[in-house]
Amino acid sequence: MAVHQFGFVERVDTLEMAEEGATFLLNSPYGPEEVWDKIPRSLQQQIIDKKIKFFVIDAYKVAKEVQLGARINTIMQTGFFALSGVLPEDEAIAKIKEYIRKTYGKRGEAIVRMNFAAVDAALSHMFEVEVPAEATSTIEQPPVVPAEAPDFVQNVTAEIMAGRGDLLPVSALPDDGTYPTGTTQWEKRNIALDIPVWETDLCIQCGKCVNVCPHSVIRAKVVPEDALAGAPETFKYADARWREFPDQQYVLQVAPEDCTACKLCVEVCPAKDKSNVSRKALNMASQIPIREQECENWDFFLNLPEVPRYGTGDGGAALKFNKVKNVQLLQPLFEFSGACAGCGETPYIRTMTQLFGDRALIANATGCSSIYGGNLPTTPYTVDANGRGPTWSNSLFEDNAEFGLGMRLAIDKQMEYAQELVGRLRDRLGHAFAGEILMADQSDEAGIAAQRERVAKLKEMLKDDTDLEARDLVALADVLVHKSVWIVGGDGWAYDIGYGGLDHVLASGRNVNVLVLDTEVYSNTGGQASKATGLGAVAKFAAGGKPTPKKDLGLLAMGYGYVYVAQIAMGSNDNQTIKAILEAESYDGPSLIIAYSHCIAHGIDIAKGLDQQDRAVKSGHWPLYRYDPRRKKEGKNPFQIDSKAPSLPLKEYIYNENRYRILQRMKPEAAAEFLKEAERLIAAKWKLYTQMAQDDSDAAAKSNGKPGPKKKPALPGAKGDGAAATPVGATPAAPPPASKPIAKGKGKLPPGFG
Amino acid sequence: MAVHQFGFVERVDTLEMAEEGATFLLNSPYGPEEVWDKIPRSLQQQIIDKKIKFFVIDAYKVAKEVQLGARINTIMQTGFFALSGVLPEDEAIAKIKEYIRKTYGKRGEAIVRMNFAAVDAALSHMFEVEVPAEATSTIEQPPVVPAEAPDFVQNVTAEIMAGRGDLLPVSALPDDGTYPTGTTQWEKRNIALDIPVWETDLCIQCGKCVNVCPHSVIRAKVVPEDALAGAPETFKYADARWREFPDQQYVLQVAPEDCTACKLCVEVCPAKDKSNVSRKALNMASQIPIREQECENWDFFLNLPEVPRYGTGDGGAALKFNKVKNVQLLQPLFEFSGACAGCGETPYIRTMTQLFGDRALIANATGCSSIYGGNLPTTPYTVDANGRGPTWSNSLFEDNAEFGLGMRLAIDKQMEYAQELVGRLRDRLGHAFAGEILMADQSDEAGIAAQRERVAKLKEMLKDDTDLEARDLVALADVLVHKSVWIVGGDGWAYDIGYGGLDHVLASGRNVNVLVLDTEVYSNTGGQASKATGLGAVAKFAAGGKPTPKKDLGLLAMGYGYVYVAQIAMGSNDNQTIKAILEAESYDGPSLIIAYSHCIAHGIDIAKGLDQQDRAVKSGHWPLYRYDPRRKKEGKNPFQIDSKAPSLPLKEYIYNENRYRILQRMKPEAAAEFLKEAERLIAAKWKLYTQMAQDDSDAAAKSNGKPGPKKKPALPGAKGDGAAATPVGATPAAPPPASKPIAKGKGKLPPGFG
Repeated sequence: MAVHQFGFVERVDTLEMAEEGATFLLNSPYGPEEVWDKIPRSLQQQIIDKKIKFFVIDAYKVAKEVQLGARINTIMQTGFFALSGVLPEDEAIAKIKEYIRKTYGKRGEAIVRMNFAAVDAALSHMFEVEVPAEATSTIEQPPVVPAEAPDFVQNVTAEIMAGRGDLLPVSALPDDGTYPTGTTQWEKRNIALDIPVWETDLCIQCGKCVNVCPHSVIRAKVVPEDALAGAPETFKYADARWREFPDQQYVLQVAPEDCTACKLCVEVCPAKDKSNVSRKALNMASQIPIREQECENWDFFLNLPEVPRYGTGDGGAALKFNKVKNVQLLQPLFEFSGACAGCGETPYIRTMTQLFGDRALIANATGCSSIYGGNLPTTPYTVDANGRGPTWSNSLFEDNAEFGLGMRLAIDKQMEYAQELVGRLRDRLGHAFAGEILMADQSDEAGIAAQRERVAKLKEMLKDDTDLEARDLVALADVLVHKSVWIVGGDGWAYDIGYGGLDHVLASGRNVNVLVLDTEVYSNTGGQASKATGLGAVAKFAAGGKPTPKKDLGLLAMGYGYVYVAQIAMGSNDNQTIKAILEAESYDGPSLIIAYSHCIAHGIDIAKGLDQQDRAVKSGHWPLYRYDPRRKKEGKNPFQIDSKAPSLPLKEYIYNENRYRILQRMKPEAAAEFLKEAERLIAAKWKLYTQMAQDDSDAAAKSNGKPGPKKKPALPGAKGDGAAATPVGATPAAPPPASKPIAKGKGKLPPGFG
Repeated sequence: MAVHQFGFVERVDTLEMAEEGATFLLNSPYGPEEVWDKIPRSLQQQIIDKKIKFFVIDAYKVAKEVQLGARINTIMQTGFFALSGVLPEDEAIAKIKEYIRKTYGKRGEAIVRMNFAAVDAALSHMFEVEVPAEATSTIEQPPVVPAEAPDFVQNVTAEIMAGRGDLLPVSALPDDGTYPTGTTQWEKRNIALDIPVWETDLCIQCGKCVNVCPHSVIRAKVVPEDALAGAPETFKYADARWREFPDQQYVLQVAPEDCTACKLCVEVCPAKDKSNVSRKALNMASQIPIREQECENWDFFLNLPEVPRYGTGDGGAALKFNKVKNVQLLQPLFEFSGACAGCGETPYIRTMTQLFGDRALIANATGCSSIYGGNLPTTPYTVDANGRGPTWSNSLFEDNAEFGLGMRLAIDKQMEYAQELVGRLRDRLGHAFAGEILMADQSDEAGIAAQRERVAKLKEMLKDDTDLEARDLVALADVLVHKSVWIVGGDGWAYDIGYGGLDHVLASGRNVNVLVLDTEVYSNTGGQASKATGLGAVAKFAAGGKPTPKKDLGLLAMGYGYVYVAQIAMGSNDNQTIKAILEAESYDGPSLIIAYSHCIAHGIDIAKGLDQQDRAVKSGHWPLYRYDPRRKKEGKNPFQIDSKAPSLPLKEYIYNENRYRILQRMKPEAAAEFLKEAERLIAAKWKLYTQMAQDDSDAAAKSNGKPGPKKKPALPGAKGDGAAATPVGATPAAPPPASKPIAKGKGKLPPGFG
């Protein structure tokens, strides 16, 4: 029996199935002398009772020594074969090395040699533990979830987590398939050996670490000093550097048991100690020694007040959530997902939930995001203190855009009926109040909060009303508060399998927000080429390098002229990312955001994921831009490029990734041809984009100077956005559908309303 | 019992279910005095035996008188109600008129009044027939199909045609679902009251009538004079006006029983009698009087020799099938379909089968073309004298492009294996002969014919060889002759339901030809809006006029840079149509042809369908163009516009169609806004297209002047097609996949081939 993660023995009955006299190999940070006291008492007892031979190996230490990072598979495999006696040791070692060459040969001789070294080092680091006669540990295996977890989590989620899901009666499961959210918080995985530790003196409070954290485990708040009364001894804070929050304290806290040690936060941290540049405002440190204290700090942090989402800070100025520094202070409603350590997708989702999570509906395409987004038994989507959070569902790979459009249509229809009922019941509600509800400006957080209050009041007024229309209105009233519909998926969905539907939904003109997490490959199914895969990248179905270039999804969408389109890369410009997400959501029509998402499938050092994003942009492979149809009404060119002209040689981007490097190694001539062609294509694309951004802004201004007549039935988009406002490279601008229910902003009263 | 088509009584046992004393109303061109002798003896006997009351009405005559054209439904309905006594006559008439107003009200008061007139006229044109005591007719109900029809047609097809399909045993049906083609020829429908008659003296032999005929019922041949020996007395011909065929005769013949009387041929005929401009080289004449003679002529015509598809005409010059005048002489392998009279789609399909039908595989999307393309029991696809013709199948609405790609991949794989076998068996075949097979130039008809001969020879050489590889090669050898893969469907498929797959297949770079029959609406399912529907057109789901403009499918496809794209409209430029079809097929990569197809769903006078196509082009709604990636290698701009700048006011195109006119009538202000916006969009599109066609030809020429190195593994498309060759408005050009089996043109010998 081999246990590859020490954390497992703390939580799982790992030896349950072991026979008497079995051999037990544990990957342990504790040596043979120390380990006995670090394992739970129940495990000790089993080892004694079953007369188990107990070995330890510090595989992570070995891996580090032979430069394999955190890759322990070869080491544990070697130990396992050495102990199991399945083959004679020499033969086993020879076979393992043969397999290493076969598996890693393509990745180069260095990788092969590192793994050979790991094999050799493994045996000298494996030790037998002398098993005492008595179980003396003071450590007890904790309950699967703590006592404060809600009933459903105790009774259902925890049972599935413990591997006893098959023992649950069907009646224990939700009968309509709706699962409670916010359950990843009960699943403390403890998979990080090291976690980031904050240095208050160096921190400039920029929030970049919070912004990039794929698992939402590093968080910030600004709180009044008196909120810190009773803080644990090791709890850290610093004077907050916000004009809007004078005399308050800035708190940055890591969830130690949820961190995955990806190091993105440390890599992105711009604050260095001038006297010791290897020391930053965040540095990795061993988790185990500080786990207990940081758990306590995390709990304290969670109970601190959130910053107000609207209105004024203490200093009197309103805090705008339009840049990283401020957005970091918003509660994420997506946390502790099962995504890979260092995932390049999840930070975009988290940002979206910080901004709109309390009113979001999410249709999720099949792919990584549907796995980490709703991976039974737990879900990372969660709720705020008021119980509001994203509603999430996954339909099929091929129909996600349609699925999300359905959410939009359902809400619109419900809203239409609710508005009609408010009109009909205006005598009961009072004309002024009913008018306020119907005319509510919900274009910002304050407006939404005010509408929520109105809806609460309306429900209260009608709560005892037995009239059928009043009952209907009470049931529907929540829909009178603006909802934000998001359609989320990867490139396999958006460029390939779901593209037909995506195109149809964008063409529909409806107010939906599409977020494409573009890893340029089918990440979740194992690395097949998609139409988003770049020219010459090696992927499954493109073993000789993909022979066709990346499809320009954004350009296709811009062709409609009434779709908001943005291409973003957090690692290149995080404030542009936030700007695009805000603009997309505020646009009362279809929006498409294409987000560069670095991925382990690229064959990169994941800790450098953000740097690689930046290279993608600097090389011209991934220009940042925003296309906002609203700008036409202001006489402006709708298309804006947000990144500079290509300045980094393309090879310094692509050959930083194994998916490109592998071809360079195996077929250097083909790789060189691909590189040349890709460079040519980048130059052509940059030329096209700059033409689009410059070409016709004056014409647009000209024709927009004299808007057409505005009588009904006017076409919303047809207000004099002149022909030439069309970007070169796109079909002409066109209006979204003329008749839609009031979604946001100022409403209008129904005819005859008094 | 009412029979609305006289032809039915000649072929169907219409009174089989009639009870004794029933009333029988027949739409008959023969009056009460004449009709008795014109119906089959068996029908007479039934009328007598069952004591049936027999009434006739010449509904077509009535319809013509009240200007309803061939629309007899109101007339027959009136007669039926008057005779049936379901309601008192006055009340029935009132109800019918009420219903007319409800049904046709939207189409305008004139239509309503015509129908009222039809009701009033119906009763005065209905007569009872005095039934004689004896059946005296010399007419016998003919067999369902003639005796010369093949066995399968006799035993299966004819049974289904006769309405006895449910009596067939399962064992009678093809066990793999493969049906013989060429079966519509046995289904003589006789639905035309009038058919075109040829005036040899006026005819200029342009072939436009043959080209536009939706049912391939008007055909031409050029034959040596001696072939006409034994021609029926009324058989017409004239001196052929072809340089390549001196001293030969031109024959134009109509299939009288298959014609649908759509009149497209007469309308398109450019040759007028100067002394009587209403007389053209084709004029409609009553079918019945000339049916018998023309049937005889048609049979004679069919047996005349076809023109040679390659090599020289008698005059020594090769006939090129690159314009209407010559293509008219090729045998259509698509004939007598069940498409609507005057269909705007089928002429494109017929042209394709004339050019490539003997080697075509067709994947057909669900829609009109799948219905008339494979409507059990008969299929309009047929074979030439050598038994070669299109292979046709229909999968689903949503996967047709993928279905067709599968045909391509299967052929490519089979060809690869066949080529490999030729290489392996070269000692048996002879190195020179094997080399000829592998290196065959199949880029024209002569090359294909030569390869067919080689394949026949190869099969003959190996026919007794029991070696397994030889058996495999004999089984596969036909695939060594070039096959032409066509993916056919309507706009509902291409723009909407199948768009995701279409995009994927185009992006694949594979050699498939996509033909989109664009009626701008879901014609077959009853007129729902598709993304191809124009701005402001009224359709199902767009009752207030479609609020978004037509999607520019061609522009999206051009974005790939390696897809051949053409937009065509036969009614505007029939030679450009042929040029585009030829270019698309000859391009060794994906091709997309978007064909304007007028349709009854547009609410037009269908006889004027071609004129309406011309209006679509002249107004700028439907620019004609071709985008040929091959031109880049010649330093030319790949994009060419084939139509002139918009010259016709848009309203003279759109308001010629009821789908636009209807909104003008119901919501004139909205219609006016739509018109204005549509005009703006047309101007913008024309500007964009002209920019694309002009902008960068010099840059393209520049960079193509210095092609890159051509070593292997060179990218086929990457030979110096400069960045700026990319049309403005499209993503940069890109190469098709590098590795493909040899499909056409010069092959290459496998390595080590002696």
